[in-house]
Order: sequence, then structure tokens, then C-alpha cells
Amino acid sequence: MKRLGLVCGVALLALSSPALADTLVDNVDGISIDREGRIDRFAGMVIDEEGRIVELLDRGDRPTRDIDYRVDGEGRVMVPGFIDAHLHVMGLGLGTLVLDLSETNTLEDALVRVATYAAANPDRPWIVGRGWNQERWGLGRFPTAAELDAVVSDRPVWLERVDGHAGWANSMALAAGNVAAATPDPAGGRIERRNGGRAPAGVLVDAAMSLVADAVPPPLPEDRDVALYNAQAILLENGVTAVADMGTTIDDWMAFRRAGDAGRLRMRIMSYADSVESMLTIGGPGPTLWLYDDRLRLNGVKLYLDGALGSRGALLKADYADDAGNRGLPLLNGTQLRNLISRAALDDFQVAIHAIGDAANAEALYAIEELSSDYGGDRRWRIEHAQVVDPADLPRFGQHGVIASMQPVHQTSDRTMAEARLGGARLQGAYAWRSIIEQGGLLAFGTDAPVEPVDPLAGLAAAISRTDAAGEPFGGWHPEQTINREQALAAYTAGAAYAGFADGRFGRLAPGERADFVLLSGDPLLSNPEQIRQIRVLETWIAGQRVYDAEIARPLVEGPAGR
Amino acid sequence: MKRLGLVCGVALLALSSPALADTLVDNVDGISIDREGRIDRFAGMVIDEEGRIVELLDRGDRPTRDIDYRVDGEGRVMVPGFIDAHLHVMGLGLGTLVLDLSETNTLEDALVRVATYAAANPDRPWIVGRGWNQERWGLGRFPTAAELDAVVSDRPVWLERVDGHAGWANSMALAAGNVAAATPDPAGGRIERRNGGRAPAGVLVDAAMSLVADAVPPPLPEDRDVALYNAQAILLENGVTAVADMGTTIDDWMAFRRAGDAGRLRMRIMSYADSVESMLTIGGPGPTLWLYDDRLRLNGVKLYLDGALGSRGALLKADYADDAGNRGLPLLNGTQLRNLISRAALDDFQVAIHAIGDAANAEALYAIEELSSDYGGDRRWRIEHAQVVDPADLPRFGQHGVIASMQPVHQTSDRTMAEARLGGARLQGAYAWRSIIEQGGLLAFGTDAPVEPVDPLAGLAAAISRTDAAGEPFGGWHPEQTINREQALAAYTAGAAYAGFADGRFGRLAPGERADFVLLSGDPLLSNPEQIRQIRVLETWIAGQRVYDAEIARPLVEGPAGR
Repeated sequence: MKRLGLVCGVALLALSSPALADTLVDNVDGISIDREGRIDRFAGMVIDEEGRIVELLDRGDRPTRDIDYRVDGEGRVMVPGFIDAHLHVMGLGLGTLVLDLSETNTLEDALVRVATYAAANPDRPWIVGRGWNQERWGLGRFPTAAELDAVVSDRPVWLERVDGHAGWANSMALAAGNVAAATPDPAGGRIERRNGGRAPAGVLVDAAMSLVADAVPPPLPEDRDVALYNAQAILLENGVTAVADMGTTIDDWMAFRRAGDAGRLRMRIMSYADSVESMLTIGGPGPTLWLYDDRLRLNGVKLYLDGALGSRGALLKADYADDAGNRGLPLLNGTQLRNLISRAALDDFQVAIHAIGDAANAEALYAIEELSSDYGGDRRWRIEHAQVVDPADLPRFGQHGVIASMQPVHQTSDRTMAEARLGGARLQGAYAWRSIIEQGGLLAFGTDAPVEPVDPLAGLAAAISRTDAAGEPFGGWHPEQTINREQALAAYTAGAAYAGFADGRFGRLAPGERADFVLLSGDPLLSNPEQIRQIRVLETWIAGQRVYDAEIARPLVEGPAGR
Repeated sequence: MKRLGLVCGVALLALSSPALADTLVDNVDGISIDREGRIDRFAGMVIDEEGRIVELLDRGDRPTRDIDYRVDGEGRVMVPGFIDAHLHVMGLGLGTLVLDLSETNTLEDALVRVATYAAANPDRPWIVGRGWNQERWGLGRFPTAAELDAVVSDRPVWLERVDGHAGWANSMALAAGNVAAATPDPAGGRIERRNGGRAPAGVLVDAAMSLVADAVPPPLPEDRDVALYNAQAILLENGVTAVADMGTTIDDWMAFRRAGDAGRLRMRIMSYADSVESMLTIGGPGPTLWLYDDRLRLNGVKLYLDGALGSRGALLKADYADDAGNRGLPLLNGTQLRNLISRAALDDFQVAIHAIGDAANAEALYAIEELSSDYGGDRRWRIEHAQVVDPADLPRFGQHGVIASMQPVHQTSDRTMAEARLGGARLQGAYAWRSIIEQGGLLAFGTDAPVEPVDPLAGLAAAISRTDAAGEPFGGWHPEQTINREQALAAYTAGAAYAGFADGRFGRLAPGERADFVLLSGDPLLSNPEQIRQIRVLETWIAGQRVYDAEIARPLVEGPAGR
């Protein structure tokens, strides 16, 4: 993930950008792409005072209207702003506010960082962090509560391991979670005990983590505002100009609105509520209007049908290859799923269903098939992840115009695990983006950030090569599922916009749409996967305003008041 | 209350009003009034394209700028738009959506109306209404569930008695509330039983009402939007251009925002959340910005310190005169009150404390006194109602700049009950608006609608006369507490604006403020109380736009989409 040093809270207006006037950006190597991946090349773009594209120019063309400002593109590559069709804005942002221990090399190093952070944040009631790894430290054992107590004893401390499967607490945190000698290990979890006794040692594994994690106070509103600012900064520096926020809470929505009301929301957010209840509270009788000049809209709801493959929560048609008798656990039964879809569709809310396993994808597709006759019109049913699909079910994507909202980098992160969980036979429909296109389905690409870094160029490289950042495996993992560069770029731009009912507003570099674009150091349509991963985002523009410039090592967007 | 026939959902723009241009309204008998009740008279007003007052003109003056539109005031009286400092917007609006039985003269008449309403509203899962009175019907007994079952048996029916102290349910509603023969009468309530048995008869009294009332489903978002539209229509036809909404829920706030986002919010709402939790969810790190051109802001929170006098919930320093040993019940103890005030004041939220009894008012004033040193600056602490104040505590209003947010019409409605509850001695500080002014306190007037009708002219008449609509009692109730016309009008305009941090934005007819005004059929500063009650609101204008015209028997504001 491309990261610049975040200047939390520095308020900076995009003073260098022209505003409220007709602008010509010329001398660019411009790429316009539609949802089907059809390409047009252009050399200049005229933008009106509302930030909409007026016309695209070929080399030598003259603008048909008077121009107030001219920006020299210096021959750089211009592509549409990337749209991440599935991520978690506040999760991304809140992650920037906790202590990061991922670079520590010894226990002592980590303890010094914890002490320093605690001293620098005297008002935080808890010290929360993540990223430690006792293997990297060469410790040969888990760290202990007593070791944490020695540096912070006035407040609870809760630090997640790098893989998220263990948490390290000090004594106050153990007490806050009521973890004591008498506490039994919960199902699926383990409380590390002190040598020779029952007393908790400090580390809680897997399901035991929630004993303490649930006691951590929720973020303050001020923290949410800073988190949103930081998330926006990360997205803009990665060239992402719009996102679909999957699982928006009421508190998340209020933070989005505060930023919008104050003019601090520069990126565009297509929001999917975390529940039907939140959807109805936020939207009321239907999706919200497009707010803040197409920067925020509640489109609908995200429904969770199953869990993840790694934890064997994904719902499979047959047993897990590495866990006989286990087919995962449904989070909703068929009736519940249909009722929730109906409640949303009744008032024209869009429905996005999280489905990982082949049984979950089948259930989602069958439910959509059944309900399509009751809820006609332009519905744009979405399946989020669509990670493992039975090839027999693939045609249903095309038959009902279902959008597969997929995360190419998940494939590279998951492939070894997926082979273990599924065995060879079921990999035919795993991360099968080419098959979905061939069956008439629609693709929208994203990252699931903060689960994966938000870098869209890494996603493009994975989509066309089925290889990871190291180029592994050679020749690609199930390379029959690679798609071409144009298809991948379309899924990351116009396809993702269509998936959020934003077509005609943004997502394409075409007259009438908002001028959201990035200037790149290379052409992703003319590069190999390794080169694509090296392409840098030089500038990011939204609605004809420059909101990120790689040469200026700080965000060009305004921060929360007084910070 | 002045009411025009509500055209629920008819969408009508204020096409007759000039927009986005400089407007002269002349030939008026204009009254400008400040917070202290100082009067200026004028004959014309120039309004800019943003709806702000540019200048006031005397007769014969020429505007100092070019005028695009001229509106002839036809010699009518122009006063600032009334500001209701304490009401419940959604309560007022939702009340318009239920079946009104207050005009029924027989049981049969009521049953016909219930049947007709049920037939006209086939999609409503419950039939909810109010206003019946078996005394008016000459029935000699309560009505029964069986009588309701005969007209509606497919859905629950729940109808509140005119005084709100009893509810009439059909069998399905009794079942929904789990009210059966075995159900005991709750403390403070009574379940009417069928002759000679334990089976519920259909009517639930006082505390027993909640058994069924709690089972009534909350309003749908669509209902909330229509309710807000109806509330706004009622307010505008009464000349009320701004309100303080006391006890805003998240759902209420979302309805306000939907209206604002869609341009349907014409009146101005100063919002006080129903709890610190709602306040933090809505406002986040502090009060919201002024949204929609000064039409909506979350100012702070309403805290409930005691109950009402009628139900003997108000907190008194000595026993109730008609209930020895009872001094009411505090809803918060002193520590809770101080903690909540601190939590709000910490982030600059405004605090409005509901206090009815003299002990509650003392507690609120002492808490403010103690916390004033910790939370300095311009706080504008508010006490809502301030109905019964120990004269010894009155100076604290002036000492700490406390605003007494009072409802003049409550005095006329309550006086007999107040005499019974308090006896003679404690009436000296009851509804004591003159004493509060004389002690340096600040007044803001309102109605507590829907508890009282929203008619501000009735409030002015009560404030200056201490008589009710019939002129009773002759000479006024405790007439030593009357205030003059100017003081009363100030408390209903500039005073109420100041109480909501809106001074400088609206509330005065002065250059730089929004052009919110009403045209009246008479001059309230030159009329006796009886005449004041007869004055009609002819037109209501907000931000230089006509939003109500008595000659047009329908609202000039836009309704919810598709209605």
C-alpha cells in the first residue's frame, strides 16, 4: 500500500487547484474506458465549474469554449479515478489510530513503544495496538501481562497479534474482561495460563480474545472524524476517488455527514448499511439522495450470509477438504435471507450479499432468482466476494444481472489456504472472474481494505496474472481465470460505479460525468504485471480539483476542525 | 390552534415567491423588536438574494440598491416570525396521522369512524387513535373490546381517551399486549374487567395503558416524513418560522435531514437531543454546523429532571398540598445531573434541563451554579418550563444568565390543578415570568406543542393577561406576574432565538438577519388580549420566501416525494 506520512489533523485546503472556472487539462496520455472495457485515447479534457467533464480533446483539438485555467499534464498517463467496490472506510481509518507494533524486532523494543505511546496519549482510557509477533522477536514463548504491567499499569492495554488470532493484555485489561483463574477457556479459544497454575498469563487466543476485546471502549466521535480523514488520505494517495463502504453503521454515517457538511468529504462514498435496521434509520423510506455533489449516498444494505474460508465459516456444498463433517455455518437461513432482501427491495434499497462458499453463493443466487419476479426493474443485485462458486451456478450471474463484487488480491493472499480448505476439484469456480464474465455476470473490483491494502494497481496486476507481489506462482495460479487489462481496469472504474448506481455521475472519463481522474507514472494497459505494481500515483483529482499530489508530502484535503 | 385542511403529501413549490433576487416589501406597518423588547417601526424591507435583510426603510425612504421585485404589503402589520422555544416537532406531526375521535358524540359514531378509517388504511398494521370521551357520549360506562371487535377484528386497535389517562383496545390489541384474565393490575394502573370475572373488558387505565401502548409498532419512515410535513404546515400557518425541538431522537433527526436534503425543510429547527447518547451520535464531537442555510442545528441535549405537576411527578421542596408525604420523584439524582451536564458542556453542547417543581428548579440552578466555573464562556444554560420556582432561588436565573424557557398557555391550562397541587403559598413563584425578568433572567416562550396548540398569539395574550381564551379569570390569575406586550413578543422572537444561539441569524427584523416574518391582521402591541387572540396570520415568510398565504387553502411548501 502506498502510504505517505499522515499528518493527522493538519487542515489544508486544495489551494493549488483551480475552482469554479472552466479548466483545460491537456498534454496527457488519456484513457477513457467503459463498463465493457472499450478504450478511447485522448490528449486533453475540459472541465466546467461544477467539476464535470465538458469534452475530451484529441491532440491538436481546440476547446469549444473559453478556458480560465490550463493545467499541463506533462505527457503523463491519465486514467479514471479508481473505485474500490468493497472496503470498510472506518475500519481503514481507525486502524491508523492504534499503536502499530508490526516493525518491532524484540520484546524490549515493543515495550518501549508501548510506554512511549502511553505517555504521548495520556487521555486515552485504553492503549490499543496490533502487529506484534513473538516469532519475529525470537522469544520462543508468548509475552506476558506482567511484562506489559511493568510499562503501563494505570490503564488497560490490549494488543492484537499480527495475524489477529491472539491478543496480549496487561492485568488491567484482563480484569476489565473478567479473565481470572476461574475463567474457563471458551469454545474455540484458549486462555494462556501462568506456569503451573490457572492464573491467566496475558495472551488470549482466538475465541478467548473477545473476553477483553469486547471491553475496549468504542472510539470517540473525535477519533472517528480523524479516522475518516486518515482513511481519505490513504485512499487519495492510492488514486482511489470513490468507494463502496460495506457495512456502514449509524456512527459511521454520522461521521460521513459531518465531513460532508463541513466540506471535508472529497472522495465519494456509496454506502451499504450494516443491517436492515441501520438502513431504515439512515435512509428512511428509501435510498438517500446523492448528497454533497455526488459524494455520498446510502444505496442499500449489506447482508452477511456466511463467514470466511480461513476460519472455515464459509458455507460449502460439501465438507471442507481439511475438516471432514464441517460445511461451515450459515449466518442467515433461507427464509431470513429472503425476508431481509424483500424488506430492502420493497423500498428500492439495493442488496449486497456477502457470500464466500459455494453453498452461500448458490443460496444467494437462488434467492435473487426467486425474488427477481417480485422486485423488477433495475435492481443491480450484488454478491460480495463470490469467492467459491459451483460452476453449475455460474450462469445465474448472467441470467439475473448479478454483480460479482470481488477482490483480486484476496486470491493471491488466500491461494494456499484455499487449496487446503477446498482441495483441487472445487478450485475451478474459486476467484473465477473470467468465468463470471464469460457467463454474462458483471464484475466490480475492490480490496476489502483494511483486510488488504487499498492499492488498486496491485489489484490490476493480480487480476491479469493470478500472481502475487513476488510474481508467485510462476505462470499464475489457475491462470485460466485471468482477465485482460481492459476488463480489469473497467471492473475497477466504470464497473464499480455501475455496481453502485453511480454510472452517469462518475466512473468514466466522458462528457457529463465528474472529472475524477489520476495521473500515473506508467500506462497499466501497456505494462506487464511487475511493471503495473511499480506504477506510481502522481496526482489524484476529484470533480476537477487536485486532492493529492505525490510531490507534496501531505494531504491536500481539509482535516477535522481544530486538529 | 389555527388549522387549515392539511393536504397530506401534495407537493407544491412556492412558485409565487420571488427567489434569488433583491426584493422590496413595502407599505407595511413593520415592527422590529430586540431581546429587551425595544421597538422600532418601519414601512419597508429590502431582502437580498440569500434571503437576508439588507435594510429597513421608513415611509418615503428609497432603497439604496436596485430592486428586482416589489411586494405590496397593503398596509398590513409585519412582525418577526414567531419562534417557539419548546415543542415537539414529530409529536405534533405524528398526532395528525392518527384517527381523531374528539368530535364524536355517540359510541356508534365513534365505531363508524373507526371502521371507515380501517377500511381507508388497509396497509396500517394497527389502527391508532385518540380523543374519545364516554362522558360526552352519555354512555354511562367505558366502551368494550367486543364493541371494537365488531368493527375491526383483523388488526389491533388502540384508542386513547381524550385526557390520555385511559386506552381502549380491541381483542387483538389486548392479545398483543399480553393482557389476559391472569394479568394483574400494575402499580398505578387498572385493567377494566368484564362483569363478574377477571377477563379484560377492553379499557386500560393509567399505568396499565403501557401494556398495549408499548406493543404499538413505531411509525414507518414514510409516516415520519409525512408527519414532519404536516407539523411544518401547522407551524407555518400559525406564523411560527423557527422552533426548538425538545427531545430529538435519531429517527427524528434523520427525518429532519431527509427534508433538508430534499429542500423540503422551510422552517428552522434548533434541536436538543433526547439523551446524551443521541446527542453524541448526532453531533459527534460537538454541536453540528448550521445546516441548510440556518434551518437546522443540533444545539445540545435535553435532560429530564422531574415529571409533571398534574401527575404529581414534579419534584417539590415540600409535600404536595393534595397528597401529604409526596414530594414527587427525581428522574436524575444530583450526581447524575452533574455528570450529564458535564458530558455535554465538555464538548460545548448546550444543556436544556426540564424542571417543573421548585425542588427540581433549585437542583438545576445549583448544578448550573457549581458547573459554571468549570464550563465558562457563552453557555446559555436553559431550564425548560421553570414552572414552580422558590422565590429564594429566582436570583440565580440572573446570576448565571439562565434562560427560562416557559409556556404561557400552560399557566391558563394548569391554574386550577396548580392551586390544588401547591396550595396558595407556593403560587408566588409559579409561572412567574415577570419575577424572572425582574431578577435578571432571560425569557424564551413556547407552547410544548402538541401538549398545547402552537398558536403564538394565544401565548402573547396569556402572557400579558394571565387569562384564558374565555377571558377567565377576570382580571387575571396572579396578575402581578403579567408582563408587557413588548416583553412577551421579544420572548417569542429575539429571546427564543438567543436561547438557541441563533441571534445574528434569525429572530430579529434587522439588517444581516434572515427575512423571516409574518403579516398579521392586527397589531399585537396595540390590542387588548381578546383582540390579540383574534389576530389572524395572513402570510408567513422565511428567508424572503412566502411559505404560507391564508388566501391559498393549501401549504406552499413541498411535500415528501411521491405523495
